[in-house]
Amino acid sequence: MTHSEARSVTEAVTERRERVNEAIDEELPIVRPERLYEASRYLLKAGGKRLRPAVLLLVAEALGDVEPLSTNYREFPTLDGSAERGSANDASGQPRAPETIDVMRAAVSIETIQSFTLIHDDIMDDDDLRRGVPAVHREYDLETAILAGDTLYSKAFEIMLESGAAPERGLRAVRTLARTCTRICEGQSLDVDFESRGDVTREEYLEMVELKTAVLYGASSSVPAILLGADQETVDALYRYGLNAGTAFQIQDDVLDLTVPSETLGKQRGSDLVEGKRTLITLHAREAGINVDSLIETDSVDAVTEGEIDDAVSTLESAGSIEYAREKAESLVREGKEELAVLPDNEARAQLESIADFLIERGY
Amino acid sequence: MTHSEARSVTEAVTERRERVNEAIDEELPIVRPERLYEASRYLLKAGGKRLRPAVLLLVAEALGDVEPLSTNYREFPTLDGSAERGSANDASGQPRAPETIDVMRAAVSIETIQSFTLIHDDIMDDDDLRRGVPAVHREYDLETAILAGDTLYSKAFEIMLESGAAPERGLRAVRTLARTCTRICEGQSLDVDFESRGDVTREEYLEMVELKTAVLYGASSSVPAILLGADQETVDALYRYGLNAGTAFQIQDDVLDLTVPSETLGKQRGSDLVEGKRTLITLHAREAGINVDSLIETDSVDAVTEGEIDDAVSTLESAGSIEYAREKAESLVREGKEELAVLPDNEARAQLESIADFLIERGY
Repeated sequence: MTHSEARSVTEAVTERRERVNEAIDEELPIVRPERLYEASRYLLKAGGKRLRPAVLLLVAEALGDVEPLSTNYREFPTLDGSAERGSANDASGQPRAPETIDVMRAAVSIETIQSFTLIHDDIMDDDDLRRGVPAVHREYDLETAILAGDTLYSKAFEIMLESGAAPERGLRAVRTLARTCTRICEGQSLDVDFESRGDVTREEYLEMVELKTAVLYGASSSVPAILLGADQETVDALYRYGLNAGTAFQIQDDVLDLTVPSETLGKQRGSDLVEGKRTLITLHAREAGINVDSLIETDSVDAVTEGEIDDAVSTLESAGSIEYAREKAESLVREGKEELAVLPDNEARAQLESIADFLIERGY
Repeated sequence: MTHSEARSVTEAVTERRERVNEAIDEELPIVRPERLYEASRYLLKAGGKRLRPAVLLLVAEALGDVEPLSTNYREFPTLDGSAERGSANDASGQPRAPETIDVMRAAVSIETIQSFTLIHDDIMDDDDLRRGVPAVHREYDLETAILAGDTLYSKAFEIMLESGAAPERGLRAVRTLARTCTRICEGQSLDVDFESRGDVTREEYLEMVELKTAVLYGASSSVPAILLGADQETVDALYRYGLNAGTAFQIQDDVLDLTVPSETLGKQRGSDLVEGKRTLITLHAREAGINVDSLIETDSVDAVTEGEIDDAVSTLESAGSIEYAREKAESLVREGKEELAVLPDNEARAQLESIADFLIERGY
């Protein structure tokens, strides 16, 4: 990917970011008890790319075959003119309002779930920082952070329920959301279990990544199709697009940890190795006979030298482990992009392809 | 209430408990990752009266005007023959299955939410024991307890979504559930805020109790009406029944803490006073000019004497504070029972009246 391509991908996301942020302000106002809602909003205000909402909005635009950014996300036309608000009788006997869906609410709902998982994950990992600011349990306290996450959890359902979709579609969207949340919890649990196990396989690792990270991308790409009334084949293909792209995203994160200079990463390169974190790379290396645990003797990120990291990376490169992970991510993105064939051939679809590429070609 | 009446109320609940427990086993099986699901089920297995599920099932029985315990809760007839499963075409062209609702799933969903809130509340209050066993974050660890609660949260939505109700009704039930969860979080947040405030009013306290405790009773009593297709007036009246009964239940808890012998309570009588907890009783007393903070000088439950408690209770009695709380609970129960007039006059309705009485007339 050239630099200008990378910028245009970023644009597809950033062009929607401000509108997503405005919608977050509207859907999650700071109401009484203010401290709870301020804590709930703290991480959302601190930043975030809004990648998942962008995917969701772009899928709607691709399905609707509209010019990107040309349509009001709050009143997005369904594919067949069916919507909840249209099914009610107009009291004045006038022609009913056009059948539209508030796809922005669905986008905010997904981002709200993402934020809830980050708040609780930071507690579980006892992380101090997130998006350059203190984690919620540091800025506030443990109790408030648990409760802020719990509040976002139910607010995400409340928001998703008000998309205006026809009832069967609204139900299916909420089912997807609930099932997704359960799977995220299962993935996080597997991740915790893996820390104390020496025999994790690549298949198990990929399953964990799929559950912990990728299913929320799957929800982002399939929920708009459900709400707008796409057929089941389309919904399923879009889900697989999100699942593959999300899995590739996480694998690429592991590659970047080893291959990008510390100053670009914003943290010590190779910190996953120092902390003994299992990744697809180290699992491949272990299966190739490398003693992964002794690759880096220093057990502190502050004390490790670039030379130690360089040597470890060389060993992993010789074993083909980094290339293996890179190729796995690439093949997932390739397969994911193929699923987009269910969409009309338009600009929004092209941007969804670019986002999948971006997930593995980004420099950091 | 006579002793035999108290027993029959207990029976209305206990007669349903075993079936609720069997349904919990079915709806929340221990699947992979097992440790997560075992932790999620730990508190549910440890006990619980299943009061909320009993209320939900009894409302269904009262609405359906059926003999209590005579009907299969998994295939409960709707009031108008409308249900999701009935709306699908039968592939073989045979007459469709009777339109029925799995009201037991709704009951399990509510109990699952209750269990999630207990797990997270115990973390927030750093409580060691619950239902005579270690709290989940003690039996397992903090990470597992947060995650177990989060898992129950989404499972509750998944379970509620599979009641078989017609889509609009299913959506309304899930809306009620989501809104209820948000309000429980708001109530818990207010409770935490109140600990550091000296100027809490009785109105604020009652609002907190309503949000933290009573709304889940409101959901228990209104959701079956929504799923079975009762009219809005009935749904609203049943919600108010639950809300009033749930508020009375919490107020009565505060009264019992002062009036029931320690050996019956299973903990030190007056422990709320020793710990400086705000209750409707102490808020009334403070407004009556009593220096509540100096009622008990001892600041440890282990060191306080029965004599100190007796003196404090005498002071609160002289101020009319205990009687005030008792009367408030009684009037809430009276108003709640009046709401049941929307139900047919039958045995299940009588049992719902008895449960409301039981909530404030129970000895402990």
